[in-house]
Amino acid sequence: MSATAPPETRERVSFQTHPDRYRHWRLVFDHGIARLTMAVDPAGGLRPGYELKLNSYDLGVDIELADAIQRIRFEHPETRCLVIDAALDKVFCAGANIPMLRSSAHGWKVNFCKFTNETRLALEDLSENSGIPSLAACNGATAGGGYELALACDRILLVDDSNSSVSLPEVPLLAVLPGTGGLTRLVDKRMVRRDRADVFCTLVEGIKGRKALEWGLVDAIAPPSRFAAERDRLAEELAAGGEDRSDRRGVELKPLEREEDENSIRWRHVNLALDRPARTAELIVTLPDEAGPEQAEAIRAAGSDWWYFRALRELDEALLELRINEPGINLVLLRVRGSVAVALAADAIVAGNEDDWFVREVRLFAKRVLKRLDMTAKSFFALADQGTAFAGTWLETALAADRLYVLDDPEAPVELGVSTLNGGALPMGNGLSRLETRFLGEPERAAAVLERLGPIPAAEADELGLATAALDEIDWEDEVRVYCEERASYSPDALTGMEANLRFAGPETLETKIFGRLTAWQNWIFQRPNAVGATGALQCYGTPQRPEFDYTRT
Amino acid sequence: MSATAPPETRERVSFQTHPDRYRHWRLVFDHGIARLTMAVDPAGGLRPGYELKLNSYDLGVDIELADAIQRIRFEHPETRCLVIDAALDKVFCAGANIPMLRSSAHGWKVNFCKFTNETRLALEDLSENSGIPSLAACNGATAGGGYELALACDRILLVDDSNSSVSLPEVPLLAVLPGTGGLTRLVDKRMVRRDRADVFCTLVEGIKGRKALEWGLVDAIAPPSRFAAERDRLAEELAAGGEDRSDRRGVELKPLEREEDENSIRWRHVNLALDRPARTAELIVTLPDEAGPEQAEAIRAAGSDWWYFRALRELDEALLELRINEPGINLVLLRVRGSVAVALAADAIVAGNEDDWFVREVRLFAKRVLKRLDMTAKSFFALADQGTAFAGTWLETALAADRLYVLDDPEAPVELGVSTLNGGALPMGNGLSRLETRFLGEPERAAAVLERLGPIPAAEADELGLATAALDEIDWEDEVRVYCEERASYSPDALTGMEANLRFAGPETLETKIFGRLTAWQNWIFQRPNAVGATGALQCYGTPQRPEFDYTRT
Repeated sequence: MSATAPPETRERVSFQTHPDRYRHWRLVFDHGIARLTMAVDPAGGLRPGYELKLNSYDLGVDIELADAIQRIRFEHPETRCLVIDAALDKVFCAGANIPMLRSSAHGWKVNFCKFTNETRLALEDLSENSGIPSLAACNGATAGGGYELALACDRILLVDDSNSSVSLPEVPLLAVLPGTGGLTRLVDKRMVRRDRADVFCTLVEGIKGRKALEWGLVDAIAPPSRFAAERDRLAEELAAGGEDRSDRRGVELKPLEREEDENSIRWRHVNLALDRPARTAELIVTLPDEAGPEQAEAIRAAGSDWWYFRALRELDEALLELRINEPGINLVLLRVRGSVAVALAADAIVAGNEDDWFVREVRLFAKRVLKRLDMTAKSFFALADQGTAFAGTWLETALAADRLYVLDDPEAPVELGVSTLNGGALPMGNGLSRLETRFLGEPERAAAVLERLGPIPAAEADELGLATAALDEIDWEDEVRVYCEERASYSPDALTGMEANLRFAGPETLETKIFGRLTAWQNWIFQRPNAVGATGALQCYGTPQRPEFDYTRT
Repeated sequence: MSATAPPETRERVSFQTHPDRYRHWRLVFDHGIARLTMAVDPAGGLRPGYELKLNSYDLGVDIELADAIQRIRFEHPETRCLVIDAALDKVFCAGANIPMLRSSAHGWKVNFCKFTNETRLALEDLSENSGIPSLAACNGATAGGGYELALACDRILLVDDSNSSVSLPEVPLLAVLPGTGGLTRLVDKRMVRRDRADVFCTLVEGIKGRKALEWGLVDAIAPPSRFAAERDRLAEELAAGGEDRSDRRGVELKPLEREEDENSIRWRHVNLALDRPARTAELIVTLPDEAGPEQAEAIRAAGSDWWYFRALRELDEALLELRINEPGINLVLLRVRGSVAVALAADAIVAGNEDDWFVREVRLFAKRVLKRLDMTAKSFFALADQGTAFAGTWLETALAADRLYVLDDPEAPVELGVSTLNGGALPMGNGLSRLETRFLGEPERAAAVLERLGPIPAAEADELGLATAALDEIDWEDEVRVYCEERASYSPDALTGMEANLRFAGPETLETKIFGRLTAWQNWIFQRPNAVGATGALQCYGTPQRPEFDYTRT
């Protein structure tokens, strides 16, 4: 691999889309049931060179899926159940597109899998925290990533036509792992017996009908003649109960306008400035002068223009830009500028309106954006200097960073700030708050920080353990420069591995297992000649060349 | 990497040693304090081509360390505390030897790290379960794997001489991760704040003195003049309390005689037969005709000739042979032959003598051997056919295997068996019993199996969920052959990753984090050009060539 960007990253990927422009999905709503139908356009690949046959997907397909899940939450809050089905005959989904994977650089594969994992977790979050469970209605072959998509749903219905199976054929067919949580969800979510999971994951043809049901691979089966009726019955069953949502009116997710030139992207509240020769980016969130509307009704009226929501959506997009479009950026300098009072007031509004569906959805979105930050394979240094406003929700971004440097200037004291949202409303993937994770060995310190609600001067933030270091005005510029140059000089791979291990102390969850254990093994295998070498299985699949393996067991 | 064995595996590694033959450690005992002094012989590397300078280590050094920990348990049961120190001036331990790593194939690095991880965990097991806490008395530079060894001790004392530091310089210096649990133990065991851990792991020079203490990197510091006194004081403090051990008399660990030819190794109870062209090995444990002595005194008199203990020691050695000396073996067919009644009677003796230190130590050893099996990167198929005795402790080996096939022959019924030891006395690294892990989603099934103490006919074992499949006499041979051929044909890397994800459902612990998350990331990095390419940091370290990195962040 050369130091230049791999070919597929030269054309920038856009993360914004809209149901009117979907090429691969159809989204319809009917009496509280959202129906999302996979109808992948074979010619609609993100890059030329591969055809998206049999409802196989690439990043572009998954960007639409992620968008659809967001639209359901915000634009159709009356939804009580999501049904995912497919428009093809006898095929639900064939998983990630193999020719796409074959022609992708290592880093692209890794980032693609990370994004699809986040989308699957968003589906589970939709059920767990927004009360919208999902049903995978598998009308045919459900293979690889297709079955992994189904595994992320609450229920799986498989057509029983003596032909259609669920399968994870990655190991025997491609010499890679199911890359989107499949192994973990098999044994940890569905708790399929490990020896059966072992058999299943080595069966190219998969498992169908009654046996799939017996082994716990699916929740229901139905013959073709009763499939539609069973799908609708299960959807109604899932939709039953829960709070009344009939009076909710959707909030439109407007496009995020942005200005860009070669070295920067500027959204309304977020500014991303790239210094590619230094491998460093500055990411600045600027808060408004006022905290904005206080009542839920006014907040809903502001909708996606509510600054708190908009700033988070822009931050989310900036993170995706960094990951997918800027592989050469190694270090991100993160600043939040504005008024600590405004940040804390806005958090109080968010916390005070938790019983409003929209405000709660925005808070859940904040949680997911912050998790995206936790999971981004770049070094993050948060810098709290003049005008900083790392407070409440925005303090979480500093706690998500690998380090936080604060300027200790007695002349013009810099402040951080703590809100009630720092107390667990925005948990990490490990289920803990960032404060709990930070002070794993000293829980009393996390409690002390939370008792210190309000603005906190830099020196005190340092004493409380919030800052990595407080630096004098005189030293600030030089020291920060040295830290940055050092960081940007280290091997990016070693940093990625180090950060993946240091960021997530404490308990493990399905989510941390997927990103920690499964992803790491997949990344390993994605480099092995047996998978990606000239005669590796991923490279040979679908060609006349038979794979040849080095059988040294490692 | 070619399909032939890498150079360093052509000379077989021996896992047996004895304090009289140690080249790298000195082990002395004094009033209940075991003192293990690292004095690595620079010329004593396992392979030619590198010098073990500055108490750096290779696999040979760690085999002696593992042996010493075993000897302390069994031969010196009066021990109440272990002190690990070093014989060099101003150097405790420089970690894994870099020229050794540089000249090793990928698989060797991976297996070396796995073994050292098991040794560190054995040190923690010694403290947690055998009441022998350990103190790392770091008289000087404690770098990389040297600090990771200290991290596995209960207490770390660092000399405060304005020069000596603890450090994990792997990321900035070598572009790899600390490979022996360092990152995990920093944030999950010592619960060092993650931003401090981030700073620490990028500081080549490490952290010394008062700051090391403040950051929780060490537990005590002492100037050179008071170092010895402080070491002894801390050792006495750790040794205080606990049960009276003065009447314990050690049990000698006799060498394990074996006969071998090119394709097999035969111990007294264990037989390992290699079919290298088929990439398959048969591993057979043969139980004796009688369960042996029933009383603790007689068991202690039998000592390391007690068959139960000996069979486990032989099994342990066979597993190491497979891992280190037989990288071309991909699939292990595991059988236990003998009488189910004998296996269950022996287990009853073990369970009934839990209050005897020796029997308890043997049970703890059984636990560690079974964990070694869980962690071995080979596929294991357990085969229960005529004469099988997968019962109790030996049933655990079948539950550790990826699959268990039982012969269902109504003419001559095959039996498995359950003992009380299957109820949690031999836990996996995730803290659960293998039955609990197997039936994670159906805990009532684990309970049902445990209620079925005694012999269990094959058909019932299948109903209970113990067997992957029960096969007819007519199909047995053909089906098993097909399963084996299929398994041995798959990519060994994909199987390793798959098994690492399927074997450990349920809770995560320090141990599963180390082997799952940290090891996987290290394995990934151990393949990256930034570490191991011609201009990678691991390859360039100590040479005039400066490393050159591809700064694509992945």
